[in-house]
Order: sequence, then structure tokens, then C-alpha cells
Amino acid sequence: MNGLLTDLYELTMSAGYFEAGISHQSATFELSIRRLPAHRNFVIAAGLPQVVEYLLGFRFASEEIDYLRSLARLGHASAGFFQQLRDLRFTGDLFAVPEGTVLFAGEPALTVRAPIMEAQIPETYLLAAIGFQTLITTKAARIVQAAGKRAVIEFGTRRAHTPEAGALAGRAAYIGGCIGTSNTLTGFRTGIPVYGTAAHSWVLAFPSELEAQRRLQELLGPETVYLIDTYDALEGARIAAALGRPLWGVRLDSGDPIELSRAVRRILDEAGLREARIMASGDLNEYKIAEIVAAGAPIDAFGVGTELATSSDAPALGGIYKLVEIDGRYTAKLSPGKATLPGAKQVYRFPDRDLVALANENVPTAGAEPLLRPAIIQGRLVEPLPDVGAARSRAAESLRRLPEAWRRLETAAPYPVEYSSGLKALVEGLRQSA
Amino acid sequence: MNGLLTDLYELTMSAGYFEAGISHQSATFELSIRRLPAHRNFVIAAGLPQVVEYLLGFRFASEEIDYLRSLARLGHASAGFFQQLRDLRFTGDLFAVPEGTVLFAGEPALTVRAPIMEAQIPETYLLAAIGFQTLITTKAARIVQAAGKRAVIEFGTRRAHTPEAGALAGRAAYIGGCIGTSNTLTGFRTGIPVYGTAAHSWVLAFPSELEAQRRLQELLGPETVYLIDTYDALEGARIAAALGRPLWGVRLDSGDPIELSRAVRRILDEAGLREARIMASGDLNEYKIAEIVAAGAPIDAFGVGTELATSSDAPALGGIYKLVEIDGRYTAKLSPGKATLPGAKQVYRFPDRDLVALANENVPTAGAEPLLRPAIIQGRLVEPLPDVGAARSRAAESLRRLPEAWRRLETAAPYPVEYSSGLKALVEGLRQSA
Repeated sequence: MNGLLTDLYELTMSAGYFEAGISHQSATFELSIRRLPAHRNFVIAAGLPQVVEYLLGFRFASEEIDYLRSLARLGHASAGFFQQLRDLRFTGDLFAVPEGTVLFAGEPALTVRAPIMEAQIPETYLLAAIGFQTLITTKAARIVQAAGKRAVIEFGTRRAHTPEAGALAGRAAYIGGCIGTSNTLTGFRTGIPVYGTAAHSWVLAFPSELEAQRRLQELLGPETVYLIDTYDALEGARIAAALGRPLWGVRLDSGDPIELSRAVRRILDEAGLREARIMASGDLNEYKIAEIVAAGAPIDAFGVGTELATSSDAPALGGIYKLVEIDGRYTAKLSPGKATLPGAKQVYRFPDRDLVALANENVPTAGAEPLLRPAIIQGRLVEPLPDVGAARSRAAESLRRLPEAWRRLETAAPYPVEYSSGLKALVEGLRQSA
Repeated sequence: MNGLLTDLYELTMSAGYFEAGISHQSATFELSIRRLPAHRNFVIAAGLPQVVEYLLGFRFASEEIDYLRSLARLGHASAGFFQQLRDLRFTGDLFAVPEGTVLFAGEPALTVRAPIMEAQIPETYLLAAIGFQTLITTKAARIVQAAGKRAVIEFGTRRAHTPEAGALAGRAAYIGGCIGTSNTLTGFRTGIPVYGTAAHSWVLAFPSELEAQRRLQELLGPETVYLIDTYDALEGARIAAALGRPLWGVRLDSGDPIELSRAVRRILDEAGLREARIMASGDLNEYKIAEIVAAGAPIDAFGVGTELATSSDAPALGGIYKLVEIDGRYTAKLSPGKATLPGAKQVYRFPDRDLVALANENVPTAGAEPLLRPAIIQGRLVEPLPDVGAARSRAAESLRRLPEAWRRLETAAPYPVEYSSGLKALVEGLRQSA
């Protein structure tokens, strides 16, 4: 199903292509990163499994077609168009960068080549699927970078833009370097580690904090993490110290994490619990974590929710999905500030720069990795997509290879992305003929 | 299904409640707005249908329970707990403010009363469902306010945090005052108006802009909206003028909308097309729209995408879901900066202020509307929820009644929200006994 999960204009245009007799023409659309989100030096692509599932599965049911017929903007389309919609299956090709690939502004994340109707309708879905998950993977990578050797867990489903988005955010954050998520559905679906022990309501549900924490220890043994700030964090730490082993550690969710963690550390150490760990959560982001790390605060792990699951400082990715070829003709948009580059492309990753060239162009590529790979050919999946673990490794490896200036939290000059001579000549030609 | 779509700690706590023998105890949780999002003077509640559907439907399937048994943090829970999870149905009560209700910081949006396990597990889902949709309704209301008499259409699915979130954003934006959405699925599901005609790819798909626009006019007749900036907006306007009637108008998606709309207006007027309308889209928000309106630019309608569907200047709602009563005992969190108020509450809306009181408290309420209403009692829906049209009317009416200072885009002093003497006495009592 899912056919209707698109902008109406994809369907009015499809009707128009049909009426104009061009709906069979082969079109190539490219989904690329127009500009990087604020404060970012790169993005890390994610979301490909959702794209593949959608392309292989989108359909229009009878009652959906009846609905479309009832709309003023589609009511005049011919019966042949609706029949074509009813029979529509994706029969084309998808080329995409694997999940976990670092990308820069101007680079394509995927290319769709299919009869124009099949390639036009997916625009809305593909942009949202890739855009969101790419934002979260990128944000996670920044946070993990700031945390250094300390572990980061994704905690943000409650703040995600729908619970279902939270389940995808957990996966994307893992690709970006988090060690796991609090989202149980994400764990069930993907096998990635899930974390979580107790909230404030646990402490409130018992007549005393001591009783609540004793019960938690009984339940969880060495996995016990006491959330100690329901009433007073230092008193909470003393209760944890009194209960002693077994425990994993304690969690702080309010107050000044630097100061509090030091005081809590002293309480735990004085009780002989040197191996007990301290976790911090509550309105954290990469900058606050960098501060905590720089201060040398004794915090062993971070739980990050809101700002990670919403990419709150950059909650939208400037992705675009543009027609670059139709029926053998190259196309480009020339609007000021929103111009696009024609032609199906390949990105060649050299150790110190990227080269964007036409897919069929002969350029020297020794030592370079071509980033776009076939995922679907003629409507069939080429091979199973890499799993989430492979995507996470690729992200880590991509980041390791990135020179340090671009890995920092601070905004750097753009990474060197060059365009081939063939591509430049093509753009010039189109401008002159426009 | 959907049982696993929650944070793991909701399930570890549930296991703990079971092992401690208190999982049958009646608990009341309250979902409230801790603080308003940045730049907001109010929020408008939305998302209740998703909450009701979830509460009436969440279940744990056998393979999901097998997965939970495999987790270190739940592996030691007893067979009785997993049996209870398998049989779990929501048997409790839900009280909620109707969609379209204006709310302020400190006010509850809903209250769940049920055996603690049934009330604890929904926390994550409910926060995400209400939080996201409330953000979008609120953002839409601000944008519509700025647009004055000009129409606003929601265009943002491609930027939403997953395509499915986009479908909900379309509905939420309509409640907030938009006249419709570009999301076809939203239209199909809810019956709200859907809009859209053509993108840049339409123009690119034909050998010339003139041919593309002529084809569009043939297809859409009086519904035709020419997107005129694929190559050059003024040239695009001249093509529209040359094609003449029938048409609805033209759309500008790049460049300076104030300057361009004036030039385009002249071109259309000189061609005798005074009734042809101009629509603007492209990175708009309430501030840019206010500027356009203040400049008197001849723009008749706005399409707003990215910033609306992500509430980008305030992409997370500080909602909390806290235990306020258990087994007849009042509870509250006292953490600095994150304290909560005990007890099930009611909000009384007077013409010039709100009063938050205990639900069972005797307070003078003449002339006030109690905002929280029963939605589910003992696991059954009390009556069908108001439809999206009723929610939209309620939002409009709520806003009309709000004094002008709080309707403005600029941040005002907090709206007067008072707390009853019974509530204050209860908090004081809990602080002293803590």
C-alpha cells in the first residue's frame, strides 16, 4: 500500500504525463543534499531500508483510486490513467550510497531511474525517509564524537515526531555510534542493544525511596541503575551506597551534572563502590557533553533524548529530488539559489576529496571508491542490504577517514567536492540553451 | 500490537511492580506541558485520536514476549509477569482536553488512571503522539495568524520526521487553521482538502516551459497553478499570461517574494488576468509571512513546508508524564527545576485566567469550562471523538477568546494560570514529609 502517502502534485503530474503520452518515458531523478544542515560539516546517510521497502511495495488500492477520482484536480483525468495507477509497480532501478556513508553538500544520496510516473510518485516518501534518518545518524555521530570514550545511549522516542519515528531514530542513532537505544521495538526489529531500568515514577510508586531502590536491586541485580534525583540526588546517592552491591551504577537526570557527579562519585567511593558507574541524562547535547568531558567530570555514560531524536538544532535536511534526465535528454533547474545539476551521477571518494561526475563519464578514478551502488535493478532487489551493524561500522570507518577539521563540532570550510569537466560542460550548455 | 513501541524501562518497571505485588494498584499519571516551546505563548493540543487508538489496541504478541524474555534486564522476571503482559489490555480511564484546546505551561493535557502497569507502559507512546501533533497545530496557528486573511496550505511531508509523521502533520496543521494539505493520505483518511498541481520536474519533463504549462492547463483547467520559477520567474509569468484563461494562478518558489510578486502581478494585470492569484512557497515561516503581509505584497496564498511540518524553531515539546497518585496516595517529584504537582487535576478556564485544581476539589467554578473530559472509562470509549473539523473550530474559537497579547508572534508574559489552595496545601505537605 502506501501509494497515497505522497504529495497530491506527484499524482496530478502523473496524470499529466499520462495524458501527454509520456508516462512511459524513462526518467532519472536524483535525491541529493542541497546544503548541509546548520552547524554540520557532513551528514551520514541512513534510511535506505525504508526506501527499498517502499519502492518494492507501494500500491494503490481500489478505494484509494476512488478517492483520487473524487478530487477536483484529478477528476478530469482519463480512465486509462486510473487503470495505470491501479497496476502500478516499481519496475525501475535504484542506485544508492550505503547507509553509514559520509556525504557533503551537493552530493547525491540516491538515484531513481524508471518510467517517469514510477519515479515521480516516490519523491515525497523518499525525501522524508532519507532526510529524517540521515539527520539522526549525523546528530548521533556528533554527540558520540563529543563523548569520546564514554558510551552514549539514545533515549528520545518520547520526543520524536511520532512514536514510530522514535523507533527509526533508535536505529539511526546506533548507526551514528550510539551503543543502543531505549526503544524496545527497535531492539526487537533490529537486534541492537536496548537499555533502561527505571524512571522517577518507580521511586514515587513505593512509600519510600529506599524501598523502591531495594526492589529494583532485587529485580535487576548487576544491571541495577538507580535514578537518584527524584527527591534529592545526594540523598539518593547515599541510599544507593547503603544498598551496596550488586549494581551497575546510578543515573542523574537533573541539576548540574559536573558538580553533582563529583559529589556522587565521592559518596560511592567512600562506600567502597569504585566500580559503580555514573550515567547522566536530561537535556544533553554534543556541546554540553563536550563541556562535561572537558571538565573531567566522573561520568561514564550519557543518555541523550530530545536533542538527538529530533536533531533539534537542525531539524530538517535540505534534501532535493530532481529530474536530471528524461528520455535521453539532460535536465536542470536554473532558479536563482536553487539550481540543480543535470544527468545521472557518480561520486568518487578519493582520500582527500570527492569528485562528482556523470555516471557514464570517463574520469580518472584510481584509488577512489564509487559511492553509489545498485540496490534495485528492474524492480528487483540486487542483494540483501547491509545490516545495521555493517552500516554502523561503515559510519565509524567513514568518520575515521575524515580529516580531523571536519570531525570537529565547530563548522569548518566546506570539504573539497569537485565537479568533473563533463558535468561543468553540460551545465554550461543547458544555461546557454535556456 | 504496538506493545513494544515503548522505552524498555516501562517494561522493567512493570516487571518490578509485578514482583513487588503492586501491579494491580490503581495509579494516576498526568501528561502535562512542563514549559512552553521557545517563542510560544500557548500550545494547541492535538493527537488525541492516536492516543485513544493506541490505548484501546496495544498488545504484546508471543514473539515479542519471547524477545523480552531474552533480554538481560528482563530475563529474571517471573513467568507470571510475562503471562500478565500477554493478557494485558487497557482497562482504565482516560481524561483529556479535546483537540483544538489552547493550553499553557503547567497544565495537564490528559490523565490516565489504571492499574499501574497499564498506565506506565503507554508513557512513551503518549508523549510522542501528543507532543508532535501539538507542536504542529501550534506552529500552524502562528503561521495562519501571521497570514491574516490569506490562505495557508501545509506542504511539509517531505521534511517531516518520516513520511507517516507528515500524514499526521497535515491533519494537525489543518486543526491549527491551514485550509488543507498536500498530503494525499491525510485527505483520504480525514476528508480534509488536499492541494497541489505541479513541481519543477513537470516543467523539466517537456521540451519547453510553454509546452509544459499548456499541458497543465489542458489537464487542470480552472484549477491550474503554474509554478513559474524553474528557469526565470518573470519569463514564467509571461508564459502564464500568454496562455490566459482558464487558470487559478501562479506559484513562486524562490527569490524575493515581495519584489517578485509585484512584478508578476503587473504582468498578469497587463494581460487582463486580474483574477489570477499568486501563491508563494519556499522556506516560509510566520515571521517571513508577517513581513510579506506588512509590505502589502500581492500574494494571495502561502504554501508552508519545512518549518511547519518540523516546527523547526521549537521541534520538541517539554511534555512530561508523571505519577500523581497511587493507591490513594498523592505523589510528586521534587527534583530542582523538574518538580511536579501531585494529584489528579482539572483545569477550569475562566474568561481571563485558568485555575488548576485537584479533580475532586470544591472550588468556585461559575462561568468556567472544565477542560479535561472523560474519553475512555474502564477501557471503553465514552463516545466518538470530535472529528477534525470540530477540532479546527475549537482551535479557532479558543484563539479568538485569547486576549490579543498572547496571540501575537512576540513572546508575552505568561498567561495567568492559578493553582487552587487545595493543590498548594498538598504540595507543601509533601515537601515537608519528604
